[in-house]
Amino acid sequence: MNAMRLVVVGAAGRMGRTLVALIKETDGVVLHAAVERSGALALGLDAGILAGAGHLGLSVGEDLDAALAGADGIIDFTAPATSVALAARAAEAGLVHVIGTTGCSAEDDAAIARAAGQGARIVKSGNMSLGVNLLAGLVELAARALPAAGFDIEIAEMHHRHKVDAPSGTALLLGHAAAAGRGVDLGDVEVLSRQGHTGARPPGAIGFAALRGGSVIGEHSVIFAADGERLELVHRAEDRSIFARGALRAALWARERPAGLYTMQDVLGLSAPRPG
Amino acid sequence: MNAMRLVVVGAAGRMGRTLVALIKETDGVVLHAAVERSGALALGLDAGILAGAGHLGLSVGEDLDAALAGADGIIDFTAPATSVALAARAAEAGLVHVIGTTGCSAEDDAAIARAAGQGARIVKSGNMSLGVNLLAGLVELAARALPAAGFDIEIAEMHHRHKVDAPSGTALLLGHAAAAGRGVDLGDVEVLSRQGHTGARPPGAIGFAALRGGSVIGEHSVIFAADGERLELVHRAEDRSIFARGALRAALWARERPAGLYTMQDVLGLSAPRPG
Amino acid sequence: MNAMRLVVVGAAGRMGRTLVALIKETDGVVLHAAVERSGALALGLDAGILAGAGHLGLSVGEDLDAALAGADGIIDFTAPATSVALAARAAEAGLVHVIGTTGCSAEDDAAIARAAGQGARIVKSGNMSLGVNLLAGLVELAARALPAAGFDIEIAEMHHRHKVDAPSGTALLLGHAAAAGRGVDLGDVEVLSRQGHTGARPPGAIGFAALRGGSVIGEHSVIFAADGERLELVHRAEDRSIFARGALRAALWARERPAGLYTMQDVLGLSAPRPG
Amino acid sequence: MNAMRLVVVGAAGRMGRTLVALIKETDGVVLHAAVERSGALALGLDAGILAGAGHLGLSVGEDLDAALAGADGIIDFTAPATSVALAARAAEAGLVHVIGTTGCSAEDDAAIARAAGQGARIVKSGNMSLGVNLLAGLVELAARALPAAGFDIEIAEMHHRHKVDAPSGTALLLGHAAAAGRGVDLGDVEVLSRQGHTGARPPGAIGFAALRGGSVIGEHSVIFAADGERLELVHRAEDRSIFARGALRAALWARERPAGLYTMQDVLGLSAPRPG
Repeated sequence: MNAMRLVVVGAAGRMGRTLVALIKETDGVVLHAAVERSGALALGLDAGILAGAGHLGLSVGEDLDAALAGADGIIDFTAPATSVALAARAAEAGLVHVIGTTGCSAEDDAAIARAAGQGARIVKSGNMSLGVNLLAGLVELAARALPAAGFDIEIAEMHHRHKVDAPSGTALLLGHAAAAGRGVDLGDVEVLSRQGHTGARPPGAIGFAALRGGSVIGEHSVIFAADGERLELVHRAEDRSIFARGALRAALWARERPAGLYTMQDVLGLSAPRPG
Repeated sequence: MNAMRLVVVGAAGRMGRTLVALIKETDGVVLHAAVERSGALALGLDAGILAGAGHLGLSVGEDLDAALAGADGIIDFTAPATSVALAARAAEAGLVHVIGTTGCSAEDDAAIARAAGQGARIVKSGNMSLGVNLLAGLVELAARALPAAGFDIEIAEMHHRHKVDAPSGTALLLGHAAAAGRGVDLGDVEVLSRQGHTGARPPGAIGFAALRGGSVIGEHSVIFAADGERLELVHRAEDRSIFARGALRAALWARERPAGLYTMQDVLGLSAPRPG
Repeated sequence: MNAMRLVVVGAAGRMGRTLVALIKETDGVVLHAAVERSGALALGLDAGILAGAGHLGLSVGEDLDAALAGADGIIDFTAPATSVALAARAAEAGLVHVIGTTGCSAEDDAAIARAAGQGARIVKSGNMSLGVNLLAGLVELAARALPAAGFDIEIAEMHHRHKVDAPSGTALLLGHAAAAGRGVDLGDVEVLSRQGHTGARPPGAIGFAALRGGSVIGEHSVIFAADGERLELVHRAEDRSIFARGALRAALWARERPAGLYTMQDVLGLSAPRPG
Repeated sequence: MNAMRLVVVGAAGRMGRTLVALIKETDGVVLHAAVERSGALALGLDAGILAGAGHLGLSVGEDLDAALAGADGIIDFTAPATSVALAARAAEAGLVHVIGTTGCSAEDDAAIARAAGQGARIVKSGNMSLGVNLLAGLVELAARALPAAGFDIEIAEMHHRHKVDAPSGTALLLGHAAAAGRGVDLGDVEVLSRQGHTGARPPGAIGFAALRGGSVIGEHSVIFAADGERLELVHRAEDRSIFARGALRAALWARERPAGLYTMQDVLGLSAPRPG
């Protein structure tokens, strides 16, 4: 098969540059176009030079129509409105669309799901790393296998000093996985922080704790604590390139799938089979 | 259903006493007899007093025939020769036989398997804790899902200062689970220790490291390390009672199964389906 | 020197029984008397049997005068009012008084300090383990050596599911050590929990996070996180006997000191010299 | 005071480029010259562009005399022979010389010490990070405070898959710190790896374990394990810039010191006072 021709949108941002550099060194994919919004300072500059990856002979442009012509897929870590618009374009042209954008509303998600129903092959996840998504799968499985009466679930995370919210989106994703394994709603059992006289731990609770400091990219621990033993499932991100790496793997995987809305669990082969 | 009538063999040893105490406080099981070898100092003493669990009105005896009459199952953390002999008795009487004995030879294991083919309902594992066995299941799954080219597997363990071998049996059990997930033989890829000029890590290796000190009952970490991220799956044993707890759960599970040889993976519902 | 004659007050409680058992197996100390409050069920029972340590020929009594006659020291993990009263008795008789009681008010602490000024040799700490107290010393030293501008301090702790408050007293003790190292007041910089839109981490903050679950006796991590590196100082308690062990070490240490109020930092030799 | 004028030797290597970029963004230091060996491809290129730090107007040269004229200090992560030669030049000119080079022989170290006796202000360490050097100080202190009879010392480290020796130099540095705290020679007590039938842990041993995998820059844990409790002192390097950062801090510190041979322990203020 020919190398997959990818369009990076938001190509001058931190994740965009990481994607451009990684595409260059990854077999099976090739940079087809690099797009930035109108007025961006990077317009016209060589995408490879911007990415610190050497001259590519392909400059950053703002014309999306030109960028998509002849493309196989779009990689998109941008903003909700942009992702919704791109999904519609992906549906028209039957493209792969990998969405790492966070902060989408329920309406945004509905629009993206519609695009998947109209011909786009979309993979969307709040965290594109293989490790975190595998962790979510393992957490769901462990939560299903272990008796809720005996094993208490706690989720701890640490991020850099600039992060402004708690718990992290990925911690909540892991919490949802644990709740799904137990067949409960996270909202019914979550304890998002603890301070002062809390009383004893409510049976069946899923607890969270957030640490902040330094330059930590992201560490998540899911702890199953019982009388006399503990299971701890931990993910440590050392480098933001893992999100780009996961996005490229998702793109290559989706290229051979029918139109639809997929998750990284699907990419990893961890999902339960879906009814036909 | 009536409470399951259990015979504890080796009832005056450390694990035997833990079992006696735990049976007393666990629903669905009852101590039917407590057995020690001929000449043991504990013969004739009340099994509950020995276990620090209060008077039970049931003294430690040496007559196995008397002990097994009317019993539903045997719990056995003893020595290989004893376990092989008990398995034959379990086959004759169609009993459940939970074997936590370690150090069995290939011949011992073959004899135990024969007993399972002749009517015994046997659950055997080198580590009876729910947590370690779930960990083994997760490790196999993760090793299958993650590409061997990108993710290096390392297994670290720590045990108390009295342990005389390395790596631990449980570390090797986890190594076998990882190798099975990758479809390789552990013997072909294991690196059991590192010292001096080792050269770069061989691709596909599964590495081990052993720490010893203090009173640590047992900690095992299985690390999947890639460029930019790590997944760490950790089990911490705080208390030896977890092995007794797992053995009782195995006994109750096996009571409702046909004769056969089972593992704790079966008890946890983690095993792949077996052909009919 | 003769073995130190120790009186255990609260001898039938969990910590009291641990103390009685440990005194039996420790060189240089001997159980002189075991005291419980009036009306306690254990009065008259053999203290060794109660402790699971075999017959000692010394029954639990309620007469404090009789107990203290001829004693060298008191070990006391009881309640604030009892500890204050015992300190006064220790002052009268010039005894060693080791206080592991928690929850003392400022008035209680002042009364205890007065007793130390009147002849008692008191060692008091909210956590008697050698490890935690050494950790506090290391935390203070690290907080002093590392620039506050670059290194963010976070304190995480995990305890069993029955604990009713957060953060733990020991986490706060470690926070005070960190603040002392930086020359600030903990109250001015503490962030006791995080939830929702917290904004970026305030410079100089000392953050806390609490996990609850299983039977964890106590784990504390103090993290110094900078751009590109982290130092983590961790204590794991596996067994409540460490508090009893530390109390006996404190008693033996104080036996050779003048009257005064000491901490476990003094016992470990970690305190800064005091002016004469 | 004027900004300190620094010469980076090996300016086109990975650490050299990190240094050039960091000097640009650090107050109090300025890049005076960037030197590479004769024949290096980078000769003549702009040092800032090479470092990904923008144009500096200062090209990489090979003339050491020209580079040192007017300089205040040399930063040197090169090779033993180069470091020995540079130390002699630093002695002649009374310069600061920060040496992060590893693999020096006893003769190399002696030559470097001679240069320090002849006017050079040298800071040399096998690991220039603040965190690791503080860790070494804490380890020595803890090893001194805790009784060797009760607390077993273990040192675990993890590095990327390309590392060719074990244990790491930094693990050995930490082992020497622990041995110094106990007043013993590391060579007399070290256990560098464990495999097979090892027997029980020798009293007083200092054990090592090495893990290899992924892209881990360097993690070191020093564990003090006793009956019932553990203290774990851990350093995690996330980014190689910490070594450059430590080197610049060492240079600024040494600028105000007399000629002599110093360690990072001196820079951190952790060393015991030296006799006049």
